Amino acid sequence: MGKIIHTGSRKVGVAPGTLIHIGKKQLTEPKITVIDYNADHFQEMVAENIEEAYPFKDSENVSWINIHGVHHVDLIEKIGTNFGIHPLVLEDIVHTDQRPKVEFFDSYIYIVLKMLQYDKEKEEIIAEQVSIILGSNFVISFQEILGDTFDPIRDRIRTSKGRIRKQGPDYLTYALLDSIVDSYFVMLEIIGENIESLDDELLDSPTPKTLESIHRLKKEVILLRKFVWPLREVVNSLQRDESFFVKESTSIFLKDIYDHIIQVMDTIESYRDILSTMLDLYLSTASNKMNEIMKVLTIIATIFIPLTFIAGIYGMNFEYMPELKWHLGYPVIWALMITVALVMLAYFRKLKWI
Amino acid sequence: MGKIIHTGSRKVGVAPGTLIHIGKKQLTEPKITVIDYNADHFQEMVAENIEEAYPFKDSENVSWINIHGVHHVDLIEKIGTNFGIHPLVLEDIVHTDQRPKVEFFDSYIYIVLKMLQYDKEKEEIIAEQVSIILGSNFVISFQEILGDTFDPIRDRIRTSKGRIRKQGPDYLTYALLDSIVDSYFVMLEIIGENIESLDDELLDSPTPKTLESIHRLKKEVILLRKFVWPLREVVNSLQRDESFFVKESTSIFLKDIYDHIIQVMDTIESYRDILSTMLDLYLSTASNKMNEIMKVLTIIATIFIPLTFIAGIYGMNFEYMPELKWHLGYPVIWALMITVALVMLAYFRKLKWI
Amino acid sequence: MGKIIHTGSRKVGVAPGTLIHIGKKQLTEPKITVIDYNADHFQEMVAENIEEAYPFKDSENVSWINIHGVHHVDLIEKIGTNFGIHPLVLEDIVHTDQRPKVEFFDSYIYIVLKMLQYDKEKEEIIAEQVSIILGSNFVISFQEILGDTFDPIRDRIRTSKGRIRKQGPDYLTYALLDSIVDSYFVMLEIIGENIESLDDELLDSPTPKTLESIHRLKKEVILLRKFVWPLREVVNSLQRDESFFVKESTSIFLKDIYDHIIQVMDTIESYRDILSTMLDLYLSTASNKMNEIMKVLTIIATIFIPLTFIAGIYGMNFEYMPELKWHLGYPVIWALMITVALVMLAYFRKLKWI
Amino acid sequence: MGKIIHTGSRKVGVAPGTLIHIGKKQLTEPKITVIDYNADHFQEMVAENIEEAYPFKDSENVSWINIHGVHHVDLIEKIGTNFGIHPLVLEDIVHTDQRPKVEFFDSYIYIVLKMLQYDKEKEEIIAEQVSIILGSNFVISFQEILGDTFDPIRDRIRTSKGRIRKQGPDYLTYALLDSIVDSYFVMLEIIGENIESLDDELLDSPTPKTLESIHRLKKEVILLRKFVWPLREVVNSLQRDESFFVKESTSIFLKDIYDHIIQVMDTIESYRDILSTMLDLYLSTASNKMNEIMKVLTIIATIFIPLTFIAGIYGMNFEYMPELKWHLGYPVIWALMITVALVMLAYFRKLKWI
Amino acid sequence: MGKIIHTGSRKVGVAPGTLIHIGKKQLTEPKITVIDYNADHFQEMVAENIEEAYPFKDSENVSWINIHGVHHVDLIEKIGTNFGIHPLVLEDIVHTDQRPKVEFFDSYIYIVLKMLQYDKEKEEIIAEQVSIILGSNFVISFQEILGDTFDPIRDRIRTSKGRIRKQGPDYLTYALLDSIVDSYFVMLEIIGENIESLDDELLDSPTPKTLESIHRLKKEVILLRKFVWPLREVVNSLQRDESFFVKESTSIFLKDIYDHIIQVMDTIESYRDILSTMLDLYLSTASNKMNEIMKVLTIIATIFIPLTFIAGIYGMNFEYMPELKWHLGYPVIWALMITVALVMLAYFRKLKWI
Ligand SMILES: [Mg+2]
Ligand SMILES: [Mg+2]
Ligand SMILES: [Mg+2]
Ligand SMILES: [Mg+2]
Ligand SMILES: [Mg+2]
Ligand SMILES: [Mg+2]
Ligand SMILES: [Mg+2]
Ligand SMILES: [Mg+2]
Ligand SMILES: [Mg+2]
Ligand SMILES: [Mg+2]
Ligand SMILES: [Mg+2]
Ligand SMILES: [Mg+2]
Ligand SMILES: [Mg+2]
Ligand SMILES: [Mg+2]
Ligand SMILES: [Mg+2]
Ligand SMILES: [Mg+2]
Ligand SMILES: [Mg+2]
Ligand SMILES: [Mg+2]
Ligand SMILES: [Mg+2]
Ligand SMILES: [Mg+2]
Ligand SMILES: [Mg+2]
Ligand SMILES: [Mg+2]
Ligand SMILES: [Mg+2]
Ligand SMILES: [Mg+2]
Ligand SMILES: [Mg+2]
Ligand SMILES: [Mg+2]
Ligand SMILES: [Mg+2]
Ligand SMILES: [Mg+2]
Ligand SMILES: [Mg+2]
Ligand SMILES: [Mg+2]
Ligand SMILES: [Mg+2]
Repeated sequence: MGKIIHTGSRKVGVAPGTLIHIGKKQLTEPKITVIDYNADHFQEMVAENIEEAYPFKDSENVSWINIHGVHHVDLIEKIGTNFGIHPLVLEDIVHTDQRPKVEFFDSYIYIVLKMLQYDKEKEEIIAEQVSIILGSNFVISFQEILGDTFDPIRDRIRTSKGRIRKQGPDYLTYALLDSIVDSYFVMLEIIGENIESLDDELLDSPTPKTLESIHRLKKEVILLRKFVWPLREVVNSLQRDESFFVKESTSIFLKDIYDHIIQVMDTIESYRDILSTMLDLYLSTASNKMNEIMKVLTIIATIFIPLTFIAGIYGMNFEYMPELKWHLGYPVIWALMITVALVMLAYFRKLKWI
Repeated sequence: MGKIIHTGSRKVGVAPGTLIHIGKKQLTEPKITVIDYNADHFQEMVAENIEEAYPFKDSENVSWINIHGVHHVDLIEKIGTNFGIHPLVLEDIVHTDQRPKVEFFDSYIYIVLKMLQYDKEKEEIIAEQVSIILGSNFVISFQEILGDTFDPIRDRIRTSKGRIRKQGPDYLTYALLDSIVDSYFVMLEIIGENIESLDDELLDSPTPKTLESIHRLKKEVILLRKFVWPLREVVNSLQRDESFFVKESTSIFLKDIYDHIIQVMDTIESYRDILSTMLDLYLSTASNKMNEIMKVLTIIATIFIPLTFIAGIYGMNFEYMPELKWHLGYPVIWALMITVALVMLAYFRKLKWI
Repeated sequence: MGKIIHTGSRKVGVAPGTLIHIGKKQLTEPKITVIDYNADHFQEMVAENIEEAYPFKDSENVSWINIHGVHHVDLIEKIGTNFGIHPLVLEDIVHTDQRPKVEFFDSYIYIVLKMLQYDKEKEEIIAEQVSIILGSNFVISFQEILGDTFDPIRDRIRTSKGRIRKQGPDYLTYALLDSIVDSYFVMLEIIGENIESLDDELLDSPTPKTLESIHRLKKEVILLRKFVWPLREVVNSLQRDESFFVKESTSIFLKDIYDHIIQVMDTIESYRDILSTMLDLYLSTASNKMNEIMKVLTIIATIFIPLTFIAGIYGMNFEYMPELKWHLGYPVIWALMITVALVMLAYFRKLKWI
Repeated sequence: MGKIIHTGSRKVGVAPGTLIHIGKKQLTEPKITVIDYNADHFQEMVAENIEEAYPFKDSENVSWINIHGVHHVDLIEKIGTNFGIHPLVLEDIVHTDQRPKVEFFDSYIYIVLKMLQYDKEKEEIIAEQVSIILGSNFVISFQEILGDTFDPIRDRIRTSKGRIRKQGPDYLTYALLDSIVDSYFVMLEIIGENIESLDDELLDSPTPKTLESIHRLKKEVILLRKFVWPLREVVNSLQRDESFFVKESTSIFLKDIYDHIIQVMDTIESYRDILSTMLDLYLSTASNKMNEIMKVLTIIATIFIPLTFIAGIYGMNFEYMPELKWHLGYPVIWALMITVALVMLAYFRKLKWI
Repeated sequence: MGKIIHTGSRKVGVAPGTLIHIGKKQLTEPKITVIDYNADHFQEMVAENIEEAYPFKDSENVSWINIHGVHHVDLIEKIGTNFGIHPLVLEDIVHTDQRPKVEFFDSYIYIVLKMLQYDKEKEEIIAEQVSIILGSNFVISFQEILGDTFDPIRDRIRTSKGRIRKQGPDYLTYALLDSIVDSYFVMLEIIGENIESLDDELLDSPTPKTLESIHRLKKEVILLRKFVWPLREVVNSLQRDESFFVKESTSIFLKDIYDHIIQVMDTIESYRDILSTMLDLYLSTASNKMNEIMKVLTIIATIFIPLTFIAGIYGMNFEYMPELKWHLGYPVIWALMITVALVMLAYFRKLKWI
């Protein structure tokens, strides 16, 4: 998962709107795909350069232009000029440490949030900034890296499944947001499963590794919280939007996303709570183990130290030690030692140590 | 008790309103029961299939249709079509990880919340999602598994006890909610009794088992909190509802439920507080036990180690050790040892260790 | 002090307004006392049965009917019928686990809160639910058990001291609330004194008993908080009340109670804070004690273990051990041992252990 | 510093406005001083009795009457009668456990808050309740004990420095409040210096004394917080006051105090946070020390215990032990022992214990 | 980084507006620089004395007067008189412990906040108070010490880069604030990197030094929070300002700063959370290490103590000990000892200690 703050190169005092990319540098070429559709029409293409996508700006159909590679600041600048996007918005698109937010402009709405994907090989969550420009008949989505959660949406458009082909760009935007929020549930499930298995481990056989895992999960949950918390207000603002960009019919679907976000937040808060408790618990479990170790040491030591002392007494070389001459000296001393040991054991049993 | 999040199979990016059940899969057949009544009339039946229940939609009487088995998505879809329920509501009915909420539509109100029951055999709390559709002259309730807290309500309807037969579907909805909230008190009492007995155990004879129980209770309380917290707003919205679905006469009863929910929340917060304190306490108690163990070890060791050293001295084999020849060497050394031991004991008494 | 939740017998799903007593069952007979007064008139009586109190309902004077024993549900029901009290209010009177609240009705105001008294013998705080019905010219107070904080008020009415005889039932209600809130200060003082003495004990000579007391106080404070927190809103509502039940002249007195409640809350929060700190402190103090114990053990062990080893060397029975034959072998070995011991002691001094 | 609650003698149920002093009983005589001034006029006197101060009530000049000794309830009562002050206000003046607040009456404003002074000898903070009555052309201030923070104000009035002589009683009230709030900064600085020096001590050489000091500071900060938190609302209310008591020109000065109070609150919150961290830190430091102690013990014990065992072997008295007869037996055993010791030391070095 | 409160010399009770500098005393001469510009014109000068800067007050161009050295109270007083600044504002400029705030006056806006710079040599963050007076056609900025984050802005003005030369003093003020807020990100990155490296250290090889660093970072974050939290409201007020000082065109840029501040706050909260967790973690790690130490001690001690006892037995000097005469006594005893040791080792393996 990403770090909590990019240790990038934010330049102090540069003019606002100066496009300097802040974030993970991806070495790949940018990839531009266009999907243009309405109830009856469907066209899909991979654009060689951004100029190929310009005509779709004014097509009556819904045009979805998806850009992979926001670190190509020239590309972003061209899009900004052609589609009339404010320089501060362009800056936010390339500064990939944005807090999720929505901003309303006269000719478009700007939405920025985090998409999460799980890298099964590295066993870590990959976070990526996604920006969405919702215009009157186009949607532009900006991503940092290849791969996204949008494939089922592309399929629904291609196969004309569900209502998506009959709706406008606001519904497409809803669909994109919904698939991103759905992906949060997947992450929560992964984290939840990790918590459950750590929880068992914690009480059965905790190791320093367990502690490390709890700590890592806690940091992931703190980060997730940073991503989700502001999203509630984003979706709420979209839903209440009075402009003509978000149609009333889409509003109920946004309400559904809103519910999902609250569910995600609730779960995150529960996880935080449980992980904190688990850290406290680890300490108690470690104390318990220490107690067990100390008991073993104490039992062995307190039984044998007095016995060794007794043996030491009769190992002394004084000339005049009457016991040494006694015929029954040796068995008597054994009897004494066994008695001492039994008394000690009885005492430990009384203390419930054994 | 249920897990904090279902590790189910939420599909990312599927079209909204696509009915895929998320939750515990119950293998039983669905069970549909109908109770139709007014002040003078009473009819009760178990429907073979959902079609038998359709006529009640338009009967003037209050019709209560109860469905067990929300994982039968075909059934839910049929009900949706016949009773005119929005696809997103149907989705929420079958996704059994909903946060409690209420939604107002033109022809019905949708309420979703959690019903809790205690499984005495397994000694665990069973949580189940209950959805309620309140129409103008019918109530449909959806449950995940057989068994509920509604039997006393069925009895009151059958025997015409109290005011229920004279009231409308809003009052029936109130009664269902009231019985569910009452069941929360029962769970709180069970948890409360567990806390009290753990509390005694904690100070008397804590074991790792105690720690485990505290942790389990804490997780249950966190989960309960997730279920109850949003319920306050649900009942509040219902009470303030301006539509014709909730009559003014029912409002004061909803206020009574509202009071109960606040009481439940207060108690949950107290439990959380106490359980956190108990975890801290466990650690202190473990430290105390460690101190006791260490004292025993230290007392034994510090008394006998010097004595053993003295014995060791006179176990040495030097040719010229004058003490060994003394007639009183042995008793003098015993006197020395006893003195050392008594001084040590006096020291420990001064430290208040013994 | 009472438990955080009554482990009583709340019945799930019973009709609202069904009077089942939940709380501590008191075996005594109910006791009904009536005080009827105005500026010039005073009458006091103990009623044999509730019917004797009915006439006072319509007397022009202020009539204060006090009932001890809310578990006599028949009695409560009769009062409900005669004085026109809503069944849900009656239910709340006999369910003695209410959260403090006020409810406004057309012909009366219903107030419920907790009265606290200190049982000096058992050294514990006794909590009891008090319900107050404020009518146009009567006040009915309901208590669980005999004994209350109202005696000074009775005296002021009897002796016509202060303004009470010249005022209406709203002022009497104020006086009752004021005496209950004053009793919270008494409880806070008792808890405060306990905290101060535990605090000294904690740093001087903490024992597991200290820990237990801190925990008990913490639970009492959590419970007190549950009782006081909602009271603020109760008094605030009464003060702002627009109905004719609370006269404007009484409002400034309610403001005075409001101030007191805030003071109580502030103190409770401080106590919570301090008690939490004390729990943390206990752990640190236990760790300190452990360090002291370990130092004693380590000093003794690390001094004598090497010495015992040296003695062991010269206790070996090899035929060819030249040192054993030396004339000065024994005193040289003593010198060596003393040197080792002194070096060890110097080392511990350097570590500031001794 | 004062206790968190006075363990005084609040009487339950006494009539409101009954003057019983609650607080520290001061044995001194009350002291009454009067300063009467306007731009051109200045008069200062110590009054023998309160009657001498009465005439100033109606003088056109600003009259500042300062009373030391609120436990003289007769005196307070006389002032109340002559200046027309509400009995509940008089009660608050003599009950010196008030929460800071402001109350607006027709002919005066009542302000109550805490003045803090540092007793250098006892090294403790002294808290005292100050009540201020702001009338149309007089100010009465009530203090518990001799000594205050008002001397610089008296000087400014005497020497006609600054704007004070040209302003009304509202500006005098501002000046009194400002000097009290300024004194909070002095206390914060004292506490802050204590925290800094404890912080160094904590990481260098913590002792149980350090723990005690952290705990004492934490309690002082909790108490300070109780005094300052409500003050924000007090000054805010004064500033917004619409009555003719607070002139618009004084409002900007009250805003300045408001800023100061927020600064004080911010600092208090930071201190709370840091002190909590320091308590946690102490525990970790204690654990570190324990680890150091245990390492010393373990190193010494694990080196010498095996060696002592070896020595013990060859101290046995079996008739047939071939090694004992060997010519090189003794040096070989020494070599073995030294090897064992070196291996142990190497092991500890690998563990980074030494 | 600065202390949480200046241990300066705030004088209790001095007249408001009396200029006494509170803060770090800088011994340098004050330094006054002026930059005067519009779209076509640019002039830059270092003023010998403040009188040289007076004419710029009324120039039509944007005039930026920057003052280094707020401890020169005479200088501040002269500026106050000439530019008509309220005495309380001047007081705030020289009291360098202000909470960030904005105040609106008829002829100017006063803004105060903290500028942060990193001293690479001392490896610490330097905080300094910056005050900004925004007039109709001038901006005065006040700093405590030489060096600031404004150089890129000076360059943009000099080289006419970006829009700054075409905008008014409000845009210059925005640029100053933006560069200060940008510097917070730099500090967060430095702290973030520290946290990451401590986090690795914590789980791998924690030392008391690690603990000290965590504590130091936590205090820095607490301080940073004090600086940033009120800034949100400052920028929000500026943005909503209805006066003619902040033009509508600048508002969107202020919104951009507002976003940045929220981002900073989010990150600060995450850091606080993580650092608290790290403190808890340190304790657990210390406990783990203790367990490891104790295991080593216990394993060695419990193996050799019984063996040494056995050796002690046969070191006794009783005349009648039959085993001593046995031919195989010595090897049998070795066999016994090895068996005991192996049993012990098997037991420890079962406990998973080795
Ligand atoms: Mg910038
Ligand atoms: Mg931006
Ligand atoms: Mg990223
Ligand atoms: Mg992507
Ligand atoms: Mg904790
Ligand atoms: Mg979806
Ligand atoms: Mg959905
Ligand atoms: Mg849904
Ligand atoms: Mg479920
Ligand atoms: Mg069921
Ligand atoms: Mg009720
Ligand atoms: Mg019920
Ligand atoms: Mg009920
Ligand atoms: Mg009830
Ligand atoms: Mg009770
Ligand atoms: Mg009673
Ligand atoms: Mg009062
Ligand atoms: Mg704690
Ligand atoms: Mg009273
Ligand atoms: Mg009172
Ligand atoms: Mg009072
Ligand atoms: Mg004084
Ligand atoms: Mg000042
Ligand atoms: Mg903690
Ligand atoms: Mg001042
Ligand atoms: Mg000031
Ligand atoms: Mg100021
Ligand atoms: Mg500077
Ligand atoms: Mg920037
Ligand atoms: Mg920016
Ligand atoms: Mg510990």
